[in-house]
Amino acid sequence: MKIAMIGLGAMGAAAARNLVNRGFDVTGFDPREAARAELVAAGGRAAATAREAATGADAVVTFVVNAAQVEAAVLGADGAAHGMAPGTPLVQCATVSAAFIAAFGLRMAERGLSVVDAPVSGGVLRSGDGTLSIMMSGPREAVAHVKPMLDAMGRFVYDFGDALGAGSTVKTINQLLCGVHLAVLGEALALGRRAHLDPEKLLEVYGNSAAMSWMMNDRGPRALEETPPTKSAVDIFVKDLGLVLDTGKDLKFPLPMAAAAMQQFLSLSGRGQGGLDDSQLWRAYPPPPEAG
Amino acid sequence: MKIAMIGLGAMGAAAARNLVNRGFDVTGFDPREAARAELVAAGGRAAATAREAATGADAVVTFVVNAAQVEAAVLGADGAAHGMAPGTPLVQCATVSAAFIAAFGLRMAERGLSVVDAPVSGGVLRSGDGTLSIMMSGPREAVAHVKPMLDAMGRFVYDFGDALGAGSTVKTINQLLCGVHLAVLGEALALGRRAHLDPEKLLEVYGNSAAMSWMMNDRGPRALEETPPTKSAVDIFVKDLGLVLDTGKDLKFPLPMAAAAMQQFLSLSGRGQGGLDDSQLWRAYPPPPEAG
Repeated sequence: MKIAMIGLGAMGAAAARNLVNRGFDVTGFDPREAARAELVAAGGRAAATAREAATGADAVVTFVVNAAQVEAAVLGADGAAHGMAPGTPLVQCATVSAAFIAAFGLRMAERGLSVVDAPVSGGVLRSGDGTLSIMMSGPREAVAHVKPMLDAMGRFVYDFGDALGAGSTVKTINQLLCGVHLAVLGEALALGRRAHLDPEKLLEVYGNSAAMSWMMNDRGPRALEETPPTKSAVDIFVKDLGLVLDTGKDLKFPLPMAAAAMQQFLSLSGRGQGGLDDSQLWRAYPPPPEAG
Repeated sequence: MKIAMIGLGAMGAAAARNLVNRGFDVTGFDPREAARAELVAAGGRAAATAREAATGADAVVTFVVNAAQVEAAVLGADGAAHGMAPGTPLVQCATVSAAFIAAFGLRMAERGLSVVDAPVSGGVLRSGDGTLSIMMSGPREAVAHVKPMLDAMGRFVYDFGDALGAGSTVKTINQLLCGVHLAVLGEALALGRRAHLDPEKLLEVYGNSAAMSWMMNDRGPRALEETPPTKSAVDIFVKDLGLVLDTGKDLKFPLPMAAAAMQQFLSLSGRGQGGLDDSQLWRAYPPPPEAG
């Protein structure tokens, strides 16, 4: 099966390598030459444009950052759509709004191309070993066509039916949960510091109590580092909680927890710290008195 | 070791039975006769007042609902303090504020009695099999004296030093995390319903994703029941998030996530539904359009 992978950032590059390792014929495109070279070194092929990567592919996968990049990479000049044969499915893995993917699907249909809504969760490690969670919806024929590839990318492939946008709504709610869990982890650690409690010990206690979350176990140790490398930036959640709140507005649905979390991410981003690792959200709170 | 257990509600009764099973000599007091009879049937003894239960005990344990009940059960008429021999430690397990326990410890010290701050986490099942998480602080001599009993009650006994109130602050932050996790679970399920997604499937997806929390796994299945029995009431978190917010005010520390969660619990409680199981928090949100 010939796959075009559009977007070779951390997640896309890992997914492309995984598909190569599992015997897929993968041609990747990314504007960064180093990213293309890495895929070639891993046994894949590289194309100079998304259009070229998509030409002759059985399926095209977009692993980019947001809706604007999907738009540009697929429908822009030298975009993938210009190379895709009629009937070829596009598997869209970026986190975008349900409203965007539904409208995008209609525009692709006008060109005789189908779309599978397939946002993922699990991070770079799980992308690299093909154990992502994939939240999928889309037309049945396209879904059946790409199922072997999705099974190679993910351990959990959840099918939410044929309505384009259902998968993205499931992912949006996933980000609502993750964003709030991160925000309250920051709040808990910041309050603990203010109360002169050892944050390392607090993480140990809460990891063994009803207060445990996956986010706490994953981000907690990095939260305690003074300058951890950025694995996932504060600004990613500014974007994703933005999608969550847009979804609430579209559906006329109040989301007070998401709204509160968004303010904390914005508080840090607005101080020019949007590039920090998202484990550092406790910095949005007042410092302990001694540091004050 | 002779233990007086004051308060035989769900948590206290389970803890008392566990201590009996592990060979402790337990005398319990609760105003409800049925609760006293159950302890006797389980092999313990019952007293007519807290004072009587505490008379001759090596340690007294309070497993009541809040600070007012601790006050009444220990220092009120026929309270435990009137029966305790000088030097006897009181192990206080109810969730109370750090400010309360610090002041309470001073008043007990005036009577020659010591206090160990020992709030717990883990629920009735873990109370019954002696595997609670215990967040402890207090004077070293008293802690050493009651350590064998605490080790019989909990699998994780965390020692936060000699400052009375440290244990309660750790528990308060635990409740901050749990309350916010519950609130965002309600928000996620309510938004999913509004978007016509199957809530059972959403729980499966998020249970295997970065969105997972202990609270989600514990409360999620009950959240989907129409009328689940109340295992832990909405009003318990109205109380506990109240403690969280009071702690923030005492320390002059903003807690926007806790504040947002509190409003959701109050929204349900204010409609007369404070007795519902706390898994039902999604009812604080607008109903799906079909039900509206």
